[in-house]
Amino acid sequence: MSELVDSLIGMDQFAIGVDLGGTNLRAAAVSASGEMIEKVAASTDLTQGPERVVDDICACIASVRDRQRGRRLAGVGIGVPGFIRIAEGFIVGSHNLPPLNNYPIRDAIEKRLGTPVVLENDANAAAMGEKWMGAGRDVDDLVLLTLGTGIGGGIISHGRVLHGFVGMAGELGHLTVVPNGNPCGCGNVGCLEKHASATAIESMANLMALGDHLSAKDVYDLAVSGEERAVRIFESMGQALGIAIAMLVNVFNYPLYLMSGGALAAWDFFYPALEKEVRWRSFSYRNTHTRIAKAELGSEAGLYGAAYLPLQAQKAQDS
Amino acid sequence: MSELVDSLIGMDQFAIGVDLGGTNLRAAAVSASGEMIEKVAASTDLTQGPERVVDDICACIASVRDRQRGRRLAGVGIGVPGFIRIAEGFIVGSHNLPPLNNYPIRDAIEKRLGTPVVLENDANAAAMGEKWMGAGRDVDDLVLLTLGTGIGGGIISHGRVLHGFVGMAGELGHLTVVPNGNPCGCGNVGCLEKHASATAIESMANLMALGDHLSAKDVYDLAVSGEERAVRIFESMGQALGIAIAMLVNVFNYPLYLMSGGALAAWDFFYPALEKEVRWRSFSYRNTHTRIAKAELGSEAGLYGAAYLPLQAQKAQDS
Repeated sequence: MSELVDSLIGMDQFAIGVDLGGTNLRAAAVSASGEMIEKVAASTDLTQGPERVVDDICACIASVRDRQRGRRLAGVGIGVPGFIRIAEGFIVGSHNLPPLNNYPIRDAIEKRLGTPVVLENDANAAAMGEKWMGAGRDVDDLVLLTLGTGIGGGIISHGRVLHGFVGMAGELGHLTVVPNGNPCGCGNVGCLEKHASATAIESMANLMALGDHLSAKDVYDLAVSGEERAVRIFESMGQALGIAIAMLVNVFNYPLYLMSGGALAAWDFFYPALEKEVRWRSFSYRNTHTRIAKAELGSEAGLYGAAYLPLQAQKAQDS
Repeated sequence: MSELVDSLIGMDQFAIGVDLGGTNLRAAAVSASGEMIEKVAASTDLTQGPERVVDDICACIASVRDRQRGRRLAGVGIGVPGFIRIAEGFIVGSHNLPPLNNYPIRDAIEKRLGTPVVLENDANAAAMGEKWMGAGRDVDDLVLLTLGTGIGGGIISHGRVLHGFVGMAGELGHLTVVPNGNPCGCGNVGCLEKHASATAIESMANLMALGDHLSAKDVYDLAVSGEERAVRIFESMGQALGIAIAMLVNVFNYPLYLMSGGALAAWDFFYPALEKEVRWRSFSYRNTHTRIAKAELGSEAGLYGAAYLPLQAQKAQDS
């Protein structure tokens, strides 16, 4: 896929990928062949309303764009936390970017910069990045789980982000893994992200009276030091992830399931329980060469993936 | 989609859809515009080995084909219970057709009849049928659950069957809905089909001491007569289905989730619990116009869908 894009649109092209978080704003210029040319970090001020956020984003993009002399900008991709309404180009239900909910952010930036803008959920962008230049570059279909304070999901199907009919597909942090489990802000109980995120690890440590106000990193350090309850917490996390991944294998029969995020540091503590659970719960997993692996691009996956989106859109237009 | 096929390949074409079960064999001639021209039923004798089954299938197909004078046969689609290995064209892990497991059935029939043959999982074929001529004809993406002695699943994505990388996608009967639930022949516990199929209903009736050797139909009749435990069984079935469908909505954000099978008779008993569960467990469901509905084609869905597959394959080749 990436070779095809290269040959179609030429090596002098680039795109800008943006990762917009609740506090941080990053942008990167990425060549059509997937080389990250330049990366900048800035911040977003959410207290002054959506126009101010748009100002910040546009300034950040412009600073990167203006330094790419001799290259042609294909467009801008922006990864954001929250549900995306693709057709309308705005965000709904984002806890991290409340002033942007229902604001026409895509059109506002497009108009200001005069270049095509693609809005995408941040986990979808990360999944696209891993498919383009990371652990998924050899497959056309994959699922990514981003393990952080919450859990996000991105699904790549035939080389493209699976969106569903309004753009809300891939909400994998809200798969029910314990029908009567921990309550979630989404209204459900037993969501994957309430049993396997950093927040869930901290909550389990608290319930186990392992210490006061421990961070997920503290719990990890305790596991390393041999504290059995901390080890048990990561096993529980692995089981929850395994239930979810087994279901995804049964649904998709895709060749690759990736995980990313800070929690990968604890891989050796949670992965054995995860793999055991998937093996147990999925006939397809036991009978096909299905891989469960670490993502490779770290926090840059979203920048690569966001940058790839306008390149891919242009390729689709050209063909 | 169906209009496009019509215009491309002409109204004089037809295809044959076959539904191959453990005891029954059905075949239908379907025109390119989706009119069922003729339908025949036969039986399969599994005791004499795979060659004999191929004989039976070919005789059944030939009898239908030979009566369609003046029409051109586009090909044959065959829906079978079990996992399909698409590339190889054979069945694996079928409990209903053990002699056919790992036998090159597609190539054997293709060679014998001299026409293209497409092999497909029966639930996938039914989903394709509903998309072509049934409850899903107005959408490009849908999920179908077939509720019978087991539970099958079929996923239509962008108008095509979602196969995964070897053809095992859509095993929705084996989604875990109760992590420590009823054991399943697949090796898992708590599979949807162990909590919501006809077999599950009978098992629940037995556990509730509702009567000796009650069939699912008997349990339904008891529910109609006001027996509270029988009513409770269908609520439990609805909850299990709701947990699974909520997850599917969160994964796919598709507009339509269909159910088919004899259990639809009990719709009024299980659907309220199902819908409540989905509403509770899926933010996407609450915030988009997602439909959960009865399939429309009954046991003919698989015949329509199987017949559509060679027409669709030809269209893809022609374009």
